[in-house]
Amino acid sequence: MTSLANTLRDRRQKLASLIDFPVILWSGSDTPRNFPANIYPFRASSHFLYFAGLPLPHAAIRLEAGKLELFIDDPTPGSALWHGEMPKREEIAAQIGADSARTMSELKHRGSNAASIPVQNYRTTLVQSQVLQRTISSPYDLDGIDKELAKAIISLRLTHDTGALAELRKAADVTVAAHKAGMKATANAKIEAEVRAAMESVFIAHNMTTSYNSIVTVHGEVLHNEQYHHPLQPGDLLLADVGGETATGWAADVTRTWPVAGKFSPTQRDIYDVVLAAHDACIAKISPGVEYRDLHLLAATVIAEGLVDLGILQGNPQDLVEIDAHALFFPHGIGHLLGLDVHDMEDLGDLAGYEEGRNRSDRFGLGYLRLNRPLKSGMLVTIEPGFYQVPAIFNNAENRAKYQDVINWERLAQFADVRGIRIEDDVLVTDTGSEVLTIALPNDADTIESLVN
Amino acid sequence: MTSLANTLRDRRQKLASLIDFPVILWSGSDTPRNFPANIYPFRASSHFLYFAGLPLPHAAIRLEAGKLELFIDDPTPGSALWHGEMPKREEIAAQIGADSARTMSELKHRGSNAASIPVQNYRTTLVQSQVLQRTISSPYDLDGIDKELAKAIISLRLTHDTGALAELRKAADVTVAAHKAGMKATANAKIEAEVRAAMESVFIAHNMTTSYNSIVTVHGEVLHNEQYHHPLQPGDLLLADVGGETATGWAADVTRTWPVAGKFSPTQRDIYDVVLAAHDACIAKISPGVEYRDLHLLAATVIAEGLVDLGILQGNPQDLVEIDAHALFFPHGIGHLLGLDVHDMEDLGDLAGYEEGRNRSDRFGLGYLRLNRPLKSGMLVTIEPGFYQVPAIFNNAENRAKYQDVINWERLAQFADVRGIRIEDDVLVTDTGSEVLTIALPNDADTIESLVN
Repeated sequence: MTSLANTLRDRRQKLASLIDFPVILWSGSDTPRNFPANIYPFRASSHFLYFAGLPLPHAAIRLEAGKLELFIDDPTPGSALWHGEMPKREEIAAQIGADSARTMSELKHRGSNAASIPVQNYRTTLVQSQVLQRTISSPYDLDGIDKELAKAIISLRLTHDTGALAELRKAADVTVAAHKAGMKATANAKIEAEVRAAMESVFIAHNMTTSYNSIVTVHGEVLHNEQYHHPLQPGDLLLADVGGETATGWAADVTRTWPVAGKFSPTQRDIYDVVLAAHDACIAKISPGVEYRDLHLLAATVIAEGLVDLGILQGNPQDLVEIDAHALFFPHGIGHLLGLDVHDMEDLGDLAGYEEGRNRSDRFGLGYLRLNRPLKSGMLVTIEPGFYQVPAIFNNAENRAKYQDVINWERLAQFADVRGIRIEDDVLVTDTGSEVLTIALPNDADTIESLVN
Repeated sequence: MTSLANTLRDRRQKLASLIDFPVILWSGSDTPRNFPANIYPFRASSHFLYFAGLPLPHAAIRLEAGKLELFIDDPTPGSALWHGEMPKREEIAAQIGADSARTMSELKHRGSNAASIPVQNYRTTLVQSQVLQRTISSPYDLDGIDKELAKAIISLRLTHDTGALAELRKAADVTVAAHKAGMKATANAKIEAEVRAAMESVFIAHNMTTSYNSIVTVHGEVLHNEQYHHPLQPGDLLLADVGGETATGWAADVTRTWPVAGKFSPTQRDIYDVVLAAHDACIAKISPGVEYRDLHLLAATVIAEGLVDLGILQGNPQDLVEIDAHALFFPHGIGHLLGLDVHDMEDLGDLAGYEEGRNRSDRFGLGYLRLNRPLKSGMLVTIEPGFYQVPAIFNNAENRAKYQDVINWERLAQFADVRGIRIEDDVLVTDTGSEVLTIALPNDADTIESLVN
């Protein structure tokens, strides 16, 4: 039995201990880009990947009482000419340890009473509805056995088994290499896109892809900046939020911020060290049982302290966090779950990220928090504090009025060369504390400088 | 008026001279990859890009009597935090020379009697049906004014204007650089993926993307091979079919085949020169009025001649082509239209590729031909003859029986180190002949060798 087959057997046996109905999971189908034969690189549904192990297009699996049935059609004769000899159904079944292997059409009569989760591919959801003989619409709004299934899968996917960790470590390692390549390429790069190219080419060379659209920008204050045309100027900081995904779908998610010219200005280094202090404080605190929300508030407090020390904020750091003053500079959450998805299981909305009975806060400083659960050994989370000068936040009249007594605008103006800084690592919760999977990528200002030069 | 606005005005005025009904074209919407916030890089519909010029997500344009109305929603206030300040509707309208600019909801009442073409994005086709108040399903099967519209657009897009050619030249130039980078990277590469990385990073560095999923393989006999894990062995030929796409969607499509160790074996060079002779013969023949199908048959004949000279085939080359013996080694078409799509307008099936009244041949040696029209000045086509040893073709019992008298299997066995060779360039039909847009990339065996070393 292959090691993959062993891993998959353990996963479905755990699932079988949680639910007593059959499950059908679809991988999804090709997505045309500009015409049907020109498709986006296929990405199988993460729930399918978790139990089927391989990114098989146009496939489904049926799980019942620990048994795995594979449904996939053999390649057509013509496809050998265009795509080469592909593994036959029985070979794939052997590789993943399936108990049986059938054609997709045989799935038609196997859908009654089965639970499922709608895939992202719209066309496939139509097939799902047909086979299950009921409408299956949005993974945000599940009920009945589908919701029971989602909760059971979440309870499994929240913590990672040995098979998952091997892939997650691979994703982390190649991502570390990509960031080092980006730092090294900066000296000779004229625009952001050239640094992005150096980083992403590392993934391509390892037969991996990016787990999300890369952010490589001198405008780090735009949180999800997907433009890469800006020139690199000597005084700029470059923020790179770039992560790899292995061939079977496991993700990394890492951010570093480095000075284009290889040397932080004094003001840049001051803020960098504040963000790093928040980052380190959170990681030092990680342990089973710790509330992730408390890590967020810890980061907020460390950032508020740092900004008070620098004279940017005024007041008691705890009080500043209570009125969300930190969020003027750190408006997003401290991080999220990481696994087969870069925001793991976010296809289910907050069902995975938020402990049952908890909901998103309407506080400015907490509303963007994607994870609100006590930590458990085997969970993988990101820790990604940041500091940004976002015009849309600073120029907001309500903010200016509310925070006029706590923010020193004149002092802040001296930090104009810090538009955005984020430091993000992937941290595994262990029995005794934590392990940073991306530890091989330095994050202190001195070493960062040496890697850029 | 911007140069883009001028180009777009000319295009819609030409359209207005061909049809007398309003037209609405949608760009399409984001396509989720594994969860809604994690999307594939957006690609606007090519027909939209042709008349709107910019890859605007969630947008539509309405064309009537040479007027352009833009429909797009302004960014939400929250989007400034995540995506930065985006251009406002009026700014975009000015850039593309729109006569008016409205919100998407205002499109609802403007759909009656309008023609359109279904986009690739399934969710958007539902919106199309709503606005047009009729079912709009497949672009393969248009009728009424939609078909009239498609024919009018085809008549425009078949030949390229100055604005299009500027983009197509840019795509060709960066693609040439990518291939040179790939050749240069081969000496230090262990697997195909590393060469692919060197090539695609050139596109990323230029803020471009690939216009199709790259083929970079030592198994060139698999025509659309999308695996990149094979090791590079000294005696291998590496086939790279890799093309770039500019930010506004214009494509290149280039193939080169080079020896991994920098030196063709005598057998590899023999076959390479046969393929190159077919390639050069076709390009020498290109001129307005020439039938593209005749180029295909010319390539087939030159290949048959070459294989007869090498003792692989036996008989008169013309006769061999008539019985499709060439197709045992050259089973695909000589090329296709190139423009906003790498197979230009293939979203419309063969409506663009095949002159009215013509249909795909059921001949083995002609059925895969994607273009069957007389050439016109301003058309851009690929010329891409090849030679492959495809097990699925050679092992086919019917083929073995039919061609037993014309193929010398023993002689062929001496060419076992030639699995697949293709040489592809992008050729513009001019008033007096042709211009190879990818001329800067050498294709003769000697120069190829020197670029790899």
